[in-house]
Amino acid sequence: MALIIQKFGGSSVANAERVMNVARTITDTYKEGNDVVVVVSAQGDTTDDLIEKAMEINPRGSKREMDMLLTAGEQISIALLAMAIEKIGCPVVSLLGWQAGFHTNTAHGAARIEEIKADRLLKEIDKHKIVIVAGFQGIHKGDDLTTLGRGGSDTSAVALAAALHADLCQIYTDVTGVFTADPRKVPNAKKLTDITYDEMLELATLGAQVLNNRSVELAKKYNVEIEVLSSMVKEPGTIVREVAKMEKMLIRGVTKDMDVARISVVGMQDVPGNAFKLFSSLAAKGINIDVILQSVGRDGTKDISFTCAKSNAEQATELLENIFGLEGATVSCDTSIAKVSVVGAGMQSHAGTASKMFGALYEAGINISMISTSEITISVLIEKEMADKAVAAVHKAFFG
Amino acid sequence: MALIIQKFGGSSVANAERVMNVARTITDTYKEGNDVVVVVSAQGDTTDDLIEKAMEINPRGSKREMDMLLTAGEQISIALLAMAIEKIGCPVVSLLGWQAGFHTNTAHGAARIEEIKADRLLKEIDKHKIVIVAGFQGIHKGDDLTTLGRGGSDTSAVALAAALHADLCQIYTDVTGVFTADPRKVPNAKKLTDITYDEMLELATLGAQVLNNRSVELAKKYNVEIEVLSSMVKEPGTIVREVAKMEKMLIRGVTKDMDVARISVVGMQDVPGNAFKLFSSLAAKGINIDVILQSVGRDGTKDISFTCAKSNAEQATELLENIFGLEGATVSCDTSIAKVSVVGAGMQSHAGTASKMFGALYEAGINISMISTSEITISVLIEKEMADKAVAAVHKAFFG
Repeated sequence: MALIIQKFGGSSVANAERVMNVARTITDTYKEGNDVVVVVSAQGDTTDDLIEKAMEINPRGSKREMDMLLTAGEQISIALLAMAIEKIGCPVVSLLGWQAGFHTNTAHGAARIEEIKADRLLKEIDKHKIVIVAGFQGIHKGDDLTTLGRGGSDTSAVALAAALHADLCQIYTDVTGVFTADPRKVPNAKKLTDITYDEMLELATLGAQVLNNRSVELAKKYNVEIEVLSSMVKEPGTIVREVAKMEKMLIRGVTKDMDVARISVVGMQDVPGNAFKLFSSLAAKGINIDVILQSVGRDGTKDISFTCAKSNAEQATELLENIFGLEGATVSCDTSIAKVSVVGAGMQSHAGTASKMFGALYEAGINISMISTSEITISVLIEKEMADKAVAAVHKAFFG
Repeated sequence: MALIIQKFGGSSVANAERVMNVARTITDTYKEGNDVVVVVSAQGDTTDDLIEKAMEINPRGSKREMDMLLTAGEQISIALLAMAIEKIGCPVVSLLGWQAGFHTNTAHGAARIEEIKADRLLKEIDKHKIVIVAGFQGIHKGDDLTTLGRGGSDTSAVALAAALHADLCQIYTDVTGVFTADPRKVPNAKKLTDITYDEMLELATLGAQVLNNRSVELAKKYNVEIEVLSSMVKEPGTIVREVAKMEKMLIRGVTKDMDVARISVVGMQDVPGNAFKLFSSLAAKGINIDVILQSVGRDGTKDISFTCAKSNAEQATELLENIFGLEGATVSCDTSIAKVSVVGAGMQSHAGTASKMFGALYEAGINISMISTSEITISVLIEKEMADKAVAAVHKAFFG
């Protein structure tokens, strides 16, 4: 007997049939003698439909009213899921974010959970009820509804697991676990039985959209054991925890990230403080930068290249032209690139990972235009048309 | 400067254009210097769509979860209406039933308002905000959401008017006021400038679906002045209050009710207690009966006829056959009838109202099969095919 948190995303409850399917998964776990608390997102396209309704009326409505609007989405899905469980004949109660005690700060649209007051939750669990909690939402000190922002339901589930000291937090998705590469693109991608928080964080950041980063950070902080598994296929998923057991595995996965733009500032004056000026001006606009490369150019100038999300590229280019264009430098932006990375805590203690990766790319005839490394990752920038080929080649080199 | 409550039904906010239209009505009232609190229902078919979703999953889901589901409907409409008002540029805040302090009993699906704790409402009004309140919903002492049942938003509006001591409660509908007959059927129907609570109650009961009875009863109890008016056409509506000013008007309206079945028990033994047995057995099943006629039959037997809603007819017939069929009586049910009524407090002090009505029906060649009178109404049962003709004839006799 354990306390298990289960989280289901919007596509898992998109229609009546899927809601019943999820209800069976939940009641199976309950009937095995476990206490079960479920976090669920809004059905399928509900959130997008609500946003569209709002845009039609006022594209610049307040975030406070947008939160009022969007939180209705999960309210609908928790009620329907509870009714499905009632049909199967298990005791159940649905709770909104505020009823489940999710107290957040006042940042509408991207609120942070400050505390989970679990009295009501614990009372319902004591009555041996399955509890269905609306993900993505909470309440602030002014008694107004808030939403947690992107990936909010994952965060709700992990926060709940931490607050209730749950034995396991199961995140149900449309894949059966975390793979060494995207299984839709790389046929012999292998499912990992476990992975560390840090590895999972790198994989998420690098474009493997399985778990939201914020939820993994939270899980790491409170040492919540997560299982990523499929809501459709019944089989064990991938466990995310502090220490992974597959010690012998050098790397855990190969990922690609297509949302990358490279911005180059060529021919900057080689005076102290230019790099600082560049990156602090970007930071002031909230533009996150990723891979950075600095090189000495001709005639005592220097060049700096860096990558950022495509959505920030135009703004960053314009900003830097205004600063460095006047000083004679040329700013250019390239969106025809992709980032391919290998991730794995094992590579820290193994030499040769980088050369193995570069060798595989060379043999596949793929040109590397930038390289970046961290303790547990090696990333390269390449032409975006070559991304899938690169992932396959690198994956083959490491996993055969 | 006054405090005005405005209530808009689901069809008034069915799409973006109508939401903007309602927003303009509200902000016009606000810009005239009034405090405005608005009660709004769920958009158009939202409630029906949600019920359909529930039925697909579990036609016998609990009322508690049904309330959780349905209250999302008004949550969507208050947020959208608030955004529309933000667009016009007036300060506004939307509040859910519980945020607006609607405390109810625990009767999910048909909850009664026990108290309105108006602290938050008053605080928002003090800040000169337009307040948009979700109609039809509240919260019970266990912190679960409840709905008020049919016509709930009208009730929410009147209760709010009473709690806030509002100067006026405007109920916006798809008609421009209360008419002497259905204006779609009787071309020369006249709009009433005012009407008493009692007259309005009779009109509502008798099938003029303008205002929900419960809300009129509440308005009478707390002496809330109601104006029934159109959300589309800008013109003064009909005022509902304790004493109507149009004293000279004998009757206020002619109505028809098509949801009527007549059940006859013919040839009952003429022994004491049979009428009691009949009506108490119906009451025990929650079947409301309306017009009653008792007559002495042949051979020392007696006959009782009464009317009820069509939805109860089958159950009532079966029940009475089980009781009186064994004793030799015949139970029959007739659903081919309609009830036509005249309503008006003025008729109390005027002789001849009944004869004028019956004369008009006679001249139109319409046969009356039952008659029922109260202090302010006279109702007749006739063949349902003749209902519109009867309303027209009677209306002509009183209003020319």
